[in-house]
Amino acid sequence: MEHDKAFQDHYPPEVAHCFGCGYLNPLGHQIKSYWHGDVSICRFTPRPEHIAIPGYVYGGLIASILDCHGTGTAAAAMYREQGRPMGSQPPLRFVTASLHVDFLKPTPMGAELEARAVVEEVKGRKVIVNEELYAGDLLCARGRVVAVVAPDHLYNGCNSSSPNCCA
Amino acid sequence: MEHDKAFQDHYPPEVAHCFGCGYLNPLGHQIKSYWHGDVSICRFTPRPEHIAIPGYVYGGLIASILDCHGTGTAAAAMYREQGRPMGSQPPLRFVTASLHVDFLKPTPMGAELEARAVVEEVKGRKVIVNEELYAGDLLCARGRVVAVVAPDHLYNGCNSSSPNCCA
Repeated sequence: MEHDKAFQDHYPPEVAHCFGCGYLNPLGHQIKSYWHGDVSICRFTPRPEHIAIPGYVYGGLIASILDCHGTGTAAAAMYREQGRPMGSQPPLRFVTASLHVDFLKPTPMGAELEARAVVEEVKGRKVIVNEELYAGDLLCARGRVVAVVAPDHLYNGCNSSSPNCCA
Repeated sequence: MEHDKAFQDHYPPEVAHCFGCGYLNPLGHQIKSYWHGDVSICRFTPRPEHIAIPGYVYGGLIASILDCHGTGTAAAAMYREQGRPMGSQPPLRFVTASLHVDFLKPTPMGAELEARAVVEEVKGRKVIVNEELYAGDLLCARGRVVAVVAPDHLYNGCNSSSPNCCA
């Protein structure tokens, strides 16, 4: 791996609580993504309760992995595009504008899952990431994430639950 | 509500372990869907750990709700199409072929979420469901699920983790 520290572990602490990938969320999945050349990789082993039909992985978990791996890859890609190391100032943190998942085959339990992401486009505040999810050698799902830089006010400790806060 | 028993609570016990909606998964979300006329409704209150950026709901949870509400609605719609009550034999259990989510606004924590689904098409073994997700009156996400009837061998207690089992 190019870097020993995962993309998500570079997020500023005020935006590191994500249930999918935040290192400050002890109850979350804490997924981690790393560059392998121009492909980014995330490996995750589902827990026994993460099933759909017995024997197969829950699709919502797969969507969650592809989502956070996609936004993490988007951040890493934009740091690269800007020619600066991850974690340098100002921080880049992405949110998901859209997520698409095609479930190609039932994903068997018992194997470590590997999500592989390739960046299609980095443009302005938007990054498009295409992903594949494997269980062993079996391609089980394809995903596509359109990620955008999180608005500044989300960085500034906004904890409002007002529906209009982030309109 | 037309029925007091949720769609998901009609699933046969051998396929009722889903992390998102299975009544036999005590660690799962146990989401429940009901008809309100031709719209199906699922209400869910995120737990405190289900955050993305602090103050906002984790997108992977939203995807999970839309996924299971979509497949539950697909099953209910096909029972209706066949003119028989949910839970009658043979059972109908759907899996997700594709899931698309557009995140329109950050979804605030602190409100009960409501997913509303409308069936676009019931054709052969496939049902297409369009969904909206609200936090209070705020439309936060739109979803689209293409659901297909689960293959018979998934009903028959297949617990194999072989990648080729369900090829």
